[in-house]
Amino acid sequence: MKKGVIFSVLVFVLAASLGFAQSSLMEQANEYFEPVPMGVPELDGNPVTYDKIELGKMLYFDPRLSKSGLISCNTCHNIGLGGDDNQEVSTGHGWQKGPRNAPTVFNSVFNMAQFWDGRAEDLAAQAKGPVQAGVEMNNTPERVIKTLKSIPEYVEYFKKAFPDDSNPVTFDNMANAIEAFEATLQTPDSRFDQYLKGQESALNDKEKEGLQAFMDKGCAGCHYGVNMGGLDYYTFGVVERPNERITQNDEGRFTVTNTKEDKYVFKSPSLRNIAITEPYFHSGKVWSLKEAIKIMGSAQLGIELSENDVEAILAFLKTTTGVQPKIEYPILPGSTKDTPKPVLD
Amino acid sequence: MKKGVIFSVLVFVLAASLGFAQSSLMEQANEYFEPVPMGVPELDGNPVTYDKIELGKMLYFDPRLSKSGLISCNTCHNIGLGGDDNQEVSTGHGWQKGPRNAPTVFNSVFNMAQFWDGRAEDLAAQAKGPVQAGVEMNNTPERVIKTLKSIPEYVEYFKKAFPDDSNPVTFDNMANAIEAFEATLQTPDSRFDQYLKGQESALNDKEKEGLQAFMDKGCAGCHYGVNMGGLDYYTFGVVERPNERITQNDEGRFTVTNTKEDKYVFKSPSLRNIAITEPYFHSGKVWSLKEAIKIMGSAQLGIELSENDVEAILAFLKTTTGVQPKIEYPILPGSTKDTPKPVLD
Repeated sequence: MKKGVIFSVLVFVLAASLGFAQSSLMEQANEYFEPVPMGVPELDGNPVTYDKIELGKMLYFDPRLSKSGLISCNTCHNIGLGGDDNQEVSTGHGWQKGPRNAPTVFNSVFNMAQFWDGRAEDLAAQAKGPVQAGVEMNNTPERVIKTLKSIPEYVEYFKKAFPDDSNPVTFDNMANAIEAFEATLQTPDSRFDQYLKGQESALNDKEKEGLQAFMDKGCAGCHYGVNMGGLDYYTFGVVERPNERITQNDEGRFTVTNTKEDKYVFKSPSLRNIAITEPYFHSGKVWSLKEAIKIMGSAQLGIELSENDVEAILAFLKTTTGVQPKIEYPILPGSTKDTPKPVLD
Repeated sequence: MKKGVIFSVLVFVLAASLGFAQSSLMEQANEYFEPVPMGVPELDGNPVTYDKIELGKMLYFDPRLSKSGLISCNTCHNIGLGGDDNQEVSTGHGWQKGPRNAPTVFNSVFNMAQFWDGRAEDLAAQAKGPVQAGVEMNNTPERVIKTLKSIPEYVEYFKKAFPDDSNPVTFDNMANAIEAFEATLQTPDSRFDQYLKGQESALNDKEKEGLQAFMDKGCAGCHYGVNMGGLDYYTFGVVERPNERITQNDEGRFTVTNTKEDKYVFKSPSLRNIAITEPYFHSGKVWSLKEAIKIMGSAQLGIELSENDVEAILAFLKTTTGVQPKIEYPILPGSTKDTPKPVLD
């Protein structure tokens, strides 16, 4: 019987230590990360209402916000494709190429700022950019307002969404409504979120190994928080600058701040849903997530990640793909004779 | 009391004749037109199933059917904009202009053939056109199949949608699935449909006057049936050829049949939802529905419609706008390393 007792004790100790090892990984993970919440966050200075969300959804899908009448927010931030366009860089008015890869709109409300260089403080500020950019939607605030005011149903929707405004149809309110809709575009309940909430079996061993490596090797130093990124700026190539094919000599945040320290500095992107938002980096030049992980190892951490670590981190990152938003395609109010006609030149 | 009796008789006769006049208009209308059905019609040789509709919806919204990865069926046949793009002519690969105005996809299943020149016998045949057209999606069947086969979820969806096929992922089946989805894109229950079904009050007096004029003046000679059009071919300019700005010297069906009689011949378009599918004619050169009605009067009927008739017909045509389809935006399966990359050149 002695042998039996010793065996039982061994099993107990083993089980306990395994249990401890697992819960310690979970605890450590909860220090770095937070689950994507189920629900709509409040927005500073922009109270979220269903009327505003509904209007924002229409505007998000309305190509008439562009000069050509062909390009909507959804063109580059496609709800059906992980919230981006799966292109190296976006294509806009006149088939022009944009300068950078379109980031996903999903969970973007949790970024501290918007765009790769953080030049917009929130999603409302962001929304005004592409509408006016010559290589994107190529429109003007005046023409957008003329368009919206020419459509009586839109005027009514703006009144409902901004009931306290005497002049509700403004470029700012267009952006506020879009921001309210975008704040609903979250992808909760990924297997990683289930794990963070305490569901031990949500990740398999390989994925847990990847999560451990992601924290131990230093990835989580920049990619932390709800979005696993989006909370600070870093030089692309902290240790070793990637080659020009990948960097495209893009000076990043320097073009915003004109400060030497900001040369080649970018906001760390969110890694949520990263497996379905290829290609990678501001340049969109890398299509393989595995290659992107290796590049980050050498460029940001100065280490060559082992094949095993890369595979494990890859397996882990795939667990961050959450439940994609279900959206009813909005029926847009019809144009009138006063609506500016599409201009394609 | 005699006076009273005479008055009563007069009232009765008046009411009866009014009743007769109204029901005769409704009867006459029902000889020319049919309501848009509520439900999905069966398709010749393409059994409609929910699995097929679901797959077709994904394909309809998937820009990866185009070489650029930017253009989907929905780009030019926008579900939110009356089933078309509200452009003179469509813009495709490389920002190229297409040759003709994009017809609405809504209710198109009830047309005897597809395209302005009827060169596709049904929606499945139609769907293969734009995918391959150089000025539209600029893709090849081989590349489309390579794309779809590179995405395991798509392969599974095709198996479910075409369970009897040993090789379900084919260009034909892509088109069959899209056709099944498009067959669901109907707009029933317009006020005109309610009227056709016997609801006398669904149209007001002005609209009824317009309906009467529409039939009496001869419009219904070409624009009859469920779709108020789409059932035969006619010369654009039966009596008087409109000017070149409007015709764009487009030879119409002649380019399909190479038969002299088919010069400048087009399929009569559906007038369903016509008020929200501007601009008009194959050229898309006319933005005002009122102007389009006048042009049809002189070009097809050889009459100058009175201002009153034009206004009445306009009022009537607006009653054909039906309930627009409610579609949940499909979440598209992610690409893999084998998926062909977007090509923008």
